[in-house]
Amino acid sequence: MTAEEAFSFLKRGTVEIVPEDEFLEKLKSGKRLVVKLGADPTRPDLHLGHAVVLRKMRQFQELGHKVVLIIGDFTGMIGDPSGRSKTRPPMTLEETRANARSYVEQAGKILITEDEARFDLRYNSEWLEPLSFKDVIFMASQLTVAQMLEREDFKKRYTENVPISLHEFLYPLAQAYDSVAIGADVEMGGSDQRFNLLVGREIQRAYGLPPQVAFLMPLLVGLDGREKMSKSLDNYIGIAEPPEAMFKKLMRVPDAVLEDYFELLTDLEKAEVKALLEKGGPVGAHRVLARLLTGAYALPRIPARIDREFYEALGYRLEAAGSDKTPGESQFPEITRAVAEAEARYDRVAKGGIPEDLPEVAIPPDALKDGKIWVARLFTLAGLTKSNAEAKRLIKDRGLKIDGEPVTDPMLEVELKKPLVLQRGRDKFVRVRLTQAEPASE
Amino acid sequence: MTAEEAFSFLKRGTVEIVPEDEFLEKLKSGKRLVVKLGADPTRPDLHLGHAVVLRKMRQFQELGHKVVLIIGDFTGMIGDPSGRSKTRPPMTLEETRANARSYVEQAGKILITEDEARFDLRYNSEWLEPLSFKDVIFMASQLTVAQMLEREDFKKRYTENVPISLHEFLYPLAQAYDSVAIGADVEMGGSDQRFNLLVGREIQRAYGLPPQVAFLMPLLVGLDGREKMSKSLDNYIGIAEPPEAMFKKLMRVPDAVLEDYFELLTDLEKAEVKALLEKGGPVGAHRVLARLLTGAYALPRIPARIDREFYEALGYRLEAAGSDKTPGESQFPEITRAVAEAEARYDRVAKGGIPEDLPEVAIPPDALKDGKIWVARLFTLAGLTKSNAEAKRLIKDRGLKIDGEPVTDPMLEVELKKPLVLQRGRDKFVRVRLTQAEPASE
Repeated sequence: MTAEEAFSFLKRGTVEIVPEDEFLEKLKSGKRLVVKLGADPTRPDLHLGHAVVLRKMRQFQELGHKVVLIIGDFTGMIGDPSGRSKTRPPMTLEETRANARSYVEQAGKILITEDEARFDLRYNSEWLEPLSFKDVIFMASQLTVAQMLEREDFKKRYTENVPISLHEFLYPLAQAYDSVAIGADVEMGGSDQRFNLLVGREIQRAYGLPPQVAFLMPLLVGLDGREKMSKSLDNYIGIAEPPEAMFKKLMRVPDAVLEDYFELLTDLEKAEVKALLEKGGPVGAHRVLARLLTGAYALPRIPARIDREFYEALGYRLEAAGSDKTPGESQFPEITRAVAEAEARYDRVAKGGIPEDLPEVAIPPDALKDGKIWVARLFTLAGLTKSNAEAKRLIKDRGLKIDGEPVTDPMLEVELKKPLVLQRGRDKFVRVRLTQAEPASE
Repeated sequence: MTAEEAFSFLKRGTVEIVPEDEFLEKLKSGKRLVVKLGADPTRPDLHLGHAVVLRKMRQFQELGHKVVLIIGDFTGMIGDPSGRSKTRPPMTLEETRANARSYVEQAGKILITEDEARFDLRYNSEWLEPLSFKDVIFMASQLTVAQMLEREDFKKRYTENVPISLHEFLYPLAQAYDSVAIGADVEMGGSDQRFNLLVGREIQRAYGLPPQVAFLMPLLVGLDGREKMSKSLDNYIGIAEPPEAMFKKLMRVPDAVLEDYFELLTDLEKAEVKALLEKGGPVGAHRVLARLLTGAYALPRIPARIDREFYEALGYRLEAAGSDKTPGESQFPEITRAVAEAEARYDRVAKGGIPEDLPEVAIPPDALKDGKIWVARLFTLAGLTKSNAEAKRLIKDRGLKIDGEPVTDPMLEVELKKPLVLQRGRDKFVRVRLTQAEPASE
């Protein structure tokens, strides 16, 4: 591949490369590029939003470049230094290491992590802890207060009088110094990281290094169809979710963002996606997306390209536009079986059926009074409702069922002589049964 | 003295003590208080503006408390870390030490500096250099960006779009940590230091120390009658100026601020000052002020009180309201002689006379052409005008004289056969003479 070809290949799907000409120069140099990604050790659960960035990094690896994953343990171990927030306790060294291992394990579904020439894992406390007050002053002097307040979130908070702790202005410097420490050629991030990545350029320059190129990837919208995918908004699809959960969630991607999901998470050609949407409609397209991604993420490592070839290797045909529910011969029989089972389960539930494999919750005998339990309390104990009040509300809307029958009386007392299947909405099921009396301990 | 009496005594002349009740508590504790003053090692020239604060510290010393002078060598040695300003080059260790010695030598005119129980000199690099990035983050987290932007000068610059380098937000933290390092009970400063001194309280609290009390002193207006006294505005009276210069400058204090000078720089009672202004008018009051301060600062160390008693010890009588130009018997004969000579010189010049002792400037022969030199060039070479253009302007206003005669022709060519007395305005004189041909070097 020539430098120009690599440039086009890597540019695909990005929001912006800052600056493009420097990136082309770097590719032309023939150097093995150092491609940086910062990881927050407080949030080790990766979802498909992360996959957008990680897949781009995998492409760099496929071209022989080196990915350096930086675990931000320095700030993680500081926690909230003002002590005001109880939600960000300082992490121990062990916690950051455990989370980093989990992060790498998950990222290993996408990145090549076992080849030292193409992957490295670093902890930024290694170089941030030895930094002195003088170093911090030097870095800070490269920026102005006005520049910091131009950053989207700071600007918003400042305008709305939401306090910004002064130390928050120092965190972009820490991240920028990471780029100095590892000599990053490229830093990857979501488009909301633009400011931080450009600070990295400034600080590298101040230390006499060639500045990195900022590689900005689009943000994947979550299942709500509005917000950026994130765990805290519960609109996410985890990359390590079991096939049935992933398949089900992918079938629920809002129609309006379906094309984005194809664009950002697969390598199907635009024309292929268009044909698919025309021929199969949203339902057919959903099925193809769900099969493609469920199949890809069921592999120990996703394929370099999630494209027509991979789809066909699973035993499906793109032209069938999702109507081929029984797959043909597969190069990955186990994977295809898992995908097909997830699809079958999805279809059974969609038709109002009860799936076979249900989570079970044991109800302790002392939760019953005279052999009965209040229906609201039962659903809450089973974890299907957050509170008795929520359960009552849902019963009014006919949103809760027992053994397939809607509950109508919010004050119903339920006997629990035999296991019951509780259902919330169309597809949340739990089987409840009374706990057996425990045998006396020996 | 009881704690309450000490409180009243020390409160006199302050703008604000924050908070007063804590200060009284500290006095009641009977502890020897640590009274901090930060000194900028880039500006070692002390003037009467500094004296306002230093005299208050001397009062603490007279009561047995300990003054700690902190030389801000940490930031001095950093200079302008952005490298943008050529006016603040980093200082060397030697420069900061030399400036500190000069500072202490001058401050020793006011403070008791030779008693270890009452004076200490510290360099803040001692504790600021070892601070880590983590320490800085901890300190920064105690403040918000909005708080920083409430500081008068930052607010103004931010509003007017004058860039604020981010590191400037860190300097108040450095100064605050000085208070932690020495366990300051009181920090002294001009009223424009209010913000910084209060940051000191926050940071001490964050480190679990009892917070210091901020002692805010009024700002002395300079000889221009408008701006705060400062060397850069050239409206200052240095505390180490020779008696004749100090006397002359004090006679030029604008009438509108004359009472402030008495209030802030002497210990005369308000009633005494009032009587003086009524009886002697501004001229008489000026003479008393000039004699008092010229006398006080001609001593190796100013007296604990610059009051009626000291004035009389110099051989003058307050009731004479400045009309007693020939002093009576003095307890400090040499000092009184110096004051009287300065006054006599002032009077001679005021009457249009030429003083006897003039600075001399040698003009090199090659500055002349055909034995003559252009008058504008001559005044500029003599240092009385900043440029030939300024000289020409002043000649038009009849502001330059040679041997007592106003120069009227701006193109005049001057012969320099004998020494001439050049004069600018009423009281700036220089004697110029041609350099002798240098003897050949051996």
